[in-house]
Amino acid sequence: MSSIMHAYRTHTCAELNARHVGETVRLSGWVHRKRDHGGVLFVDLRDHYGLTQIVADSDSPALPILESLRIESVVTIDGIVKARSGSTVNPNLPTGEIEVFARGVSVQSAAQELPMPVAGEAEYPEDIRLRYRFLDLRRERLHRNIVLRSNVIASVRNRMISQGFTEFQTPILTASSPEGARDYLVPSRVHPGKFYALPQAPQMFKQLLMVAGFDRYFQIAPCFRDEDARADRSPGEFYQLDFEMSFVTQDDVFAAIEPVLHGLFEEFAGDRQVSPLPFRRIPYAESMLKYGNDKPDLRNPLLITDVSDHFVGSGFGIFSRIVEGGGKVRAIPAPGAGAGSRKFFDDMNEWARAQGFTGLGYINIKGGVPGGPIAKNHGDEATARLVAELGLGPDDGVFFAAGKEADAARLAGLARTRVGELLELIDPKRFEFCWIVDFPMFEYDEDAKKIDFSHNPFSMPQGELEALETKDPLDILAYQYDIVCNGVELSSGAIRNHRPEIMYKAFEIAGYTQEQVDANFSGMINAFKFGAPPHGGSAPGIDRIVMLLADEPNIREVIVFPMNQKAEDLMMNAPAPATPKQLRELSIRVVEQTKG
Amino acid sequence: MSSIMHAYRTHTCAELNARHVGETVRLSGWVHRKRDHGGVLFVDLRDHYGLTQIVADSDSPALPILESLRIESVVTIDGIVKARSGSTVNPNLPTGEIEVFARGVSVQSAAQELPMPVAGEAEYPEDIRLRYRFLDLRRERLHRNIVLRSNVIASVRNRMISQGFTEFQTPILTASSPEGARDYLVPSRVHPGKFYALPQAPQMFKQLLMVAGFDRYFQIAPCFRDEDARADRSPGEFYQLDFEMSFVTQDDVFAAIEPVLHGLFEEFAGDRQVSPLPFRRIPYAESMLKYGNDKPDLRNPLLITDVSDHFVGSGFGIFSRIVEGGGKVRAIPAPGAGAGSRKFFDDMNEWARAQGFTGLGYINIKGGVPGGPIAKNHGDEATARLVAELGLGPDDGVFFAAGKEADAARLAGLARTRVGELLELIDPKRFEFCWIVDFPMFEYDEDAKKIDFSHNPFSMPQGELEALETKDPLDILAYQYDIVCNGVELSSGAIRNHRPEIMYKAFEIAGYTQEQVDANFSGMINAFKFGAPPHGGSAPGIDRIVMLLADEPNIREVIVFPMNQKAEDLMMNAPAPATPKQLRELSIRVVEQTKG
Repeated sequence: MSSIMHAYRTHTCAELNARHVGETVRLSGWVHRKRDHGGVLFVDLRDHYGLTQIVADSDSPALPILESLRIESVVTIDGIVKARSGSTVNPNLPTGEIEVFARGVSVQSAAQELPMPVAGEAEYPEDIRLRYRFLDLRRERLHRNIVLRSNVIASVRNRMISQGFTEFQTPILTASSPEGARDYLVPSRVHPGKFYALPQAPQMFKQLLMVAGFDRYFQIAPCFRDEDARADRSPGEFYQLDFEMSFVTQDDVFAAIEPVLHGLFEEFAGDRQVSPLPFRRIPYAESMLKYGNDKPDLRNPLLITDVSDHFVGSGFGIFSRIVEGGGKVRAIPAPGAGAGSRKFFDDMNEWARAQGFTGLGYINIKGGVPGGPIAKNHGDEATARLVAELGLGPDDGVFFAAGKEADAARLAGLARTRVGELLELIDPKRFEFCWIVDFPMFEYDEDAKKIDFSHNPFSMPQGELEALETKDPLDILAYQYDIVCNGVELSSGAIRNHRPEIMYKAFEIAGYTQEQVDANFSGMINAFKFGAPPHGGSAPGIDRIVMLLADEPNIREVIVFPMNQKAEDLMMNAPAPATPKQLRELSIRVVEQTKG
Repeated sequence: MSSIMHAYRTHTCAELNARHVGETVRLSGWVHRKRDHGGVLFVDLRDHYGLTQIVADSDSPALPILESLRIESVVTIDGIVKARSGSTVNPNLPTGEIEVFARGVSVQSAAQELPMPVAGEAEYPEDIRLRYRFLDLRRERLHRNIVLRSNVIASVRNRMISQGFTEFQTPILTASSPEGARDYLVPSRVHPGKFYALPQAPQMFKQLLMVAGFDRYFQIAPCFRDEDARADRSPGEFYQLDFEMSFVTQDDVFAAIEPVLHGLFEEFAGDRQVSPLPFRRIPYAESMLKYGNDKPDLRNPLLITDVSDHFVGSGFGIFSRIVEGGGKVRAIPAPGAGAGSRKFFDDMNEWARAQGFTGLGYINIKGGVPGGPIAKNHGDEATARLVAELGLGPDDGVFFAAGKEADAARLAGLARTRVGELLELIDPKRFEFCWIVDFPMFEYDEDAKKIDFSHNPFSMPQGELEALETKDPLDILAYQYDIVCNGVELSSGAIRNHRPEIMYKAFEIAGYTQEQVDANFSGMINAFKFGAPPHGGSAPGIDRIVMLLADEPNIREVIVFPMNQKAEDLMMNAPAPATPKQLRELSIRVVEQTKG
């Protein structure tokens, strides 16, 4: 060993190649795999950066030590770089041209028998993976996902800063919010009986930053909602690219964030294509009609059509009665499906019933002849007109979702997705972005028999005060928008209502008095009374962006230390009982929960 | 107004200069100041970027509107850029060459009367400032501090990434830690009677990231300690540049982080000088002697000397008795102070008594003649020897701190700082960094009459297992270090003990059995049993770094939304009582606190 050699390594496990042949080197890492070839031991030594093949033969003092070690032990190897012979070169490995002949080894950490394997990507029960997350994180795919996440966030930050945004850290110990999801509470020791809340989002802080005159805010913001877990939402905490801008219109918000998202996805898309700039803007009403929801997957080429008019007085009585009762019939094409088995259509109908719908009608065209009960009852001529209007070919199929407008739209949207998947029409190599715009400001609440806000009460109504004073509330749109990619809603956002008089009026339409508004939202409204700029923003979800880029359907595959679906950290053993002293200091007591 | 003009602005309030003269522009911002010059109104319009002077005369329809508005209202001005006449050019303002003649104005937000001023930097009571933080943040100095903070953090991130570090977000809802400060607890709704804790630091997570094979981790990490506030620590949450590295020695840690800190301070130092690389390494024992503490302000040129030997058998009985009883006498020079009034020396003595010490002896030399009771009793010859050894000049002074070693060191350190300040020896235009190294691993606990860890039980002892087995525990040093700047400890750090057998041995020396260690620290120790790399790191405090760079002694001046010293957010009204429903869902009840 050279006296000037570093204590642990001269190179990482990804660095050595043919240029280093003959050099004396020192490497440190984990024993990833061992292969014993009769007195010659091959060890794949792994670190964060890569793998290097170590060789120890019977002349090496390292041999017995390496032989005796369990895999995943940590060692430092002293050795000589040798070229691999032609047939043993591994062109898939950056270090595949060489191997290191071990002259010595120091054991930094001898591993015990492992509770789960690291080498290979075998499926393993999630509770074991989470309990031994520090082992799971050594596995190639998860390790790569987590590094991807870090690189995505670093890239987002630099792109936001390039766009003139400044990052601020807003408080994590703050006040409970009057609306939205359930808060996590934090008892105050200094103020007995009082509680902080963890922020569901820094919404109020970012708006106050605009009121404070900071022009373009962003934050990779931790957010906390005490909600039950979903595949795409981790219990507890999640991160969003929270941003807000002053003196902007809706188009300015889009123009600021589109290049960030587009550039980000281009950077990490690999061989996948990203929809070009500017992203499409789709009005909410159009999206509900054509895609059956407000988060369309535009990779799916199928479009839904309203065909209600075709069924007025139709011989197909189910549909004619629905349409005459104010309902809708929506058509979902299934290109080429008519050429195949009728089973495809019947299976779709069964699937719709299993989803809780009354069923999914269809026409299956085979060799130009429309088939099925709808075609039969609707009549040849009317069916031909319908087929012609839908532009269906001689072997296409078409499904019909019928019912009240909202139900028909929802079933049509689900059927569009399923047909797209079954016919393999959804290109996995594309990222298709769009904005959904022009959300309605109000909706009619059938249960309460009153007008209520349909989304966010704090968004600016299009037409501002004049619209509120002169238009039918149900016709008023909001400067409210969603950004959607491949059917995943990354975020909603809005131009905010920064004028107290417009806010009072909007709440009045929804049935609230000024006193009620002040009681619940005085903090923000009072701030607006001391000079507030027009402002707006959004908050795309970081976890969802990384899921899309990593092509992982489970959010726990893109979070370094996630909780399980029961909101438990199995590795750290959280949550856990508190000590009596802790509870006493916090002036709280645990009580039996009465089952509701 | 041009139809293609932006709704709110063609330029920011910092952009216009002589090149724009004659252009039609639109600006938006806050009415910062108004000056009425008899029918001509001058308005300083302010946004995040700067100020622009707006002029409205009696021909302008904007005049009556601007006249009627309160300051801090938000307006959009349409106008023409005009050159200022020679004498009214303001060379201190980027827009000082021009003014904008207002042709029209739109009021975006009319301000009410303000609870505190924005223009000017008048002192204002902190509770008002915190309650109306969104106004306070408009003030120039605070606005600048917060932007500085953001820029510092962005720079740190880029510098860490350039050094090969990767940022990971570790959990915020996690487990209570068995050691350290008080945790904030978060009751679990799903698991009644159980609690999460907010992390005091991501210490365990970052070490597990090393065990997981991520080589160089960092995070601008939010940390939470339920401790009472100090000037340099915000109650509740604070941020640190948390980092950790694998396969490193102490020197590697220094080499990785020094260029980050040095580059950062150079970037934001302005006209202040940053100590060159590499930063000085000062052993703990040397620091305690020369500077009287382990966080020396190296801008202060004064050095403390041990002069105990001089007082063995001295005629100055107080000191001779202290030294003969095992105590120490430390000398703190006061260059040139002898030329002045004796009052300086007596005031120092009084100050020391006010600090709880028995007093601070001194010799004041005037025209080469040592004066004061110590010189008189110590004897001419002995005093001359002492003065010569200390290298004192003919008009210098020297103070003496005497007592048990720890007390003498502490008083000497405080006196060194005070003399340095009073004699104006501390250069405010420098940032002086150093590492304090070689902390003792153990110390003798006088109260418990046993050996205990002196700092961090989890640091690697120098000499590892062999040292623990063969050396006097009180002679064993640790690979533990502090980074200090201008007398401010930015962080401690360590090479961690990653070997369970060394950890058990170290704890055994401090009187703990293996069972006790396992009971408290099993999570980390078990992880180490599956292959752990040697690793180490540190966690410089972000808030303290920004305080140094912003030259602000109060941490609330560098945090955008701080709590007050009572851990209250006056703007958001947190903490606050929870609703009965919230408490019921969390299975907790508030109880009367019994006064201790």
